[in-house]
Amino acid sequence: MNKETQRHQRRMQRHKAVVDAAVARATEERGLILVLTGNGKGKSSSGFGMVARALGHGLKIGVVQFIKGRFSTGEEAFFRRFPEEVQYHVMGTGFTWETQDKDKDIAATEATWTKAEALLNDPDIALVLLDELNIVLKHSYLQIERVLETLAKRPPQQHVVITGRAAPQALIDVADTVTEMNGVKHAFQIGIKAQKGIEL
Amino acid sequence: MNKETQRHQRRMQRHKAVVDAAVARATEERGLILVLTGNGKGKSSSGFGMVARALGHGLKIGVVQFIKGRFSTGEEAFFRRFPEEVQYHVMGTGFTWETQDKDKDIAATEATWTKAEALLNDPDIALVLLDELNIVLKHSYLQIERVLETLAKRPPQQHVVITGRAAPQALIDVADTVTEMNGVKHAFQIGIKAQKGIEL
Repeated sequence: MNKETQRHQRRMQRHKAVVDAAVARATEERGLILVLTGNGKGKSSSGFGMVARALGHGLKIGVVQFIKGRFSTGEEAFFRRFPEEVQYHVMGTGFTWETQDKDKDIAATEATWTKAEALLNDPDIALVLLDELNIVLKHSYLQIERVLETLAKRPPQQHVVITGRAAPQALIDVADTVTEMNGVKHAFQIGIKAQKGIEL
Repeated sequence: MNKETQRHQRRMQRHKAVVDAAVARATEERGLILVLTGNGKGKSSSGFGMVARALGHGLKIGVVQFIKGRFSTGEEAFFRRFPEEVQYHVMGTGFTWETQDKDKDIAATEATWTKAEALLNDPDIALVLLDELNIVLKHSYLQIERVLETLAKRPPQQHVVITGRAAPQALIDVADTVTEMNGVKHAFQIGIKAQKGIEL
């Protein structure tokens, strides 16, 4: 074994000791609240990646998509193929600038939140994705207090993933894992269409 | 219609005009390079969300997981259920601090990159996910020049998603969309285990 190889091995042994100690300290298992926020691309897709991951473990999942849904998306088409494992609800009214009707938006949010509440009360559901929930909170179409109360009372092993830009601080405070996704650059800004498999 | 309702409607009409103009400007359709980097949770899961989205559109996909793979993950178990649509390759040697063997890591990277090259040459593959590629680039197990050259020559409509912390600047320069995922907090830091459906 040459010197560089030995150095690499020693460095990696030290690194492994640090990693192993951190893994040994991380013993708690419970349902997590994950918040994916910021203005960059990747929040909803990350939530859907966790849905796929959970499906790989044979878990049951609930998906509630707020705001989105005038047109069917790739994720909806795909995950609706697993009705036994995935309960899928879409608010379906489209963006606020499409409805242009606050009362209609609030009524649709209310009806959609009722679906979310049912999932957040169901101990058979291992993971609930509340896609773009932060947007309806930002517009005050739903009160954060109701959300926090429902999250606090949910089954203890249930994970909840909440996406959307501008997550309220009160939600960040109760979350276990929070990622802020910052858009360094975005193809749309340079005139490239939203494309199938990427944004749609 | 009351005053507040009218105000909301006018505000949303103005917003819609801005959005519509941006959508009208975004006319180009071509394969994108997306880079998901930063130290926060969500990079790989976002890549896998795009895989799910692409499957929803009936597209064919290639997945190459660098680094990871001593144990099978939820995403691997799930996406291997679709062998007609998803070509799935895992480097399978585990993390650098597990192998503790640089030569072995380099040889494994080389073999895995060969799989990636085949996908990046195949016009039938609409989306290629190169999960944790940034890590092997960071360790110089693979030269960035080879990656850039292969990306430049790929089929023009093919999308490529590259994940991993510490993306090299040269890759960011050629990418169309770049998100930096910053970990505001992470459950692991407060002693919570990596959990099925979330990290695994």
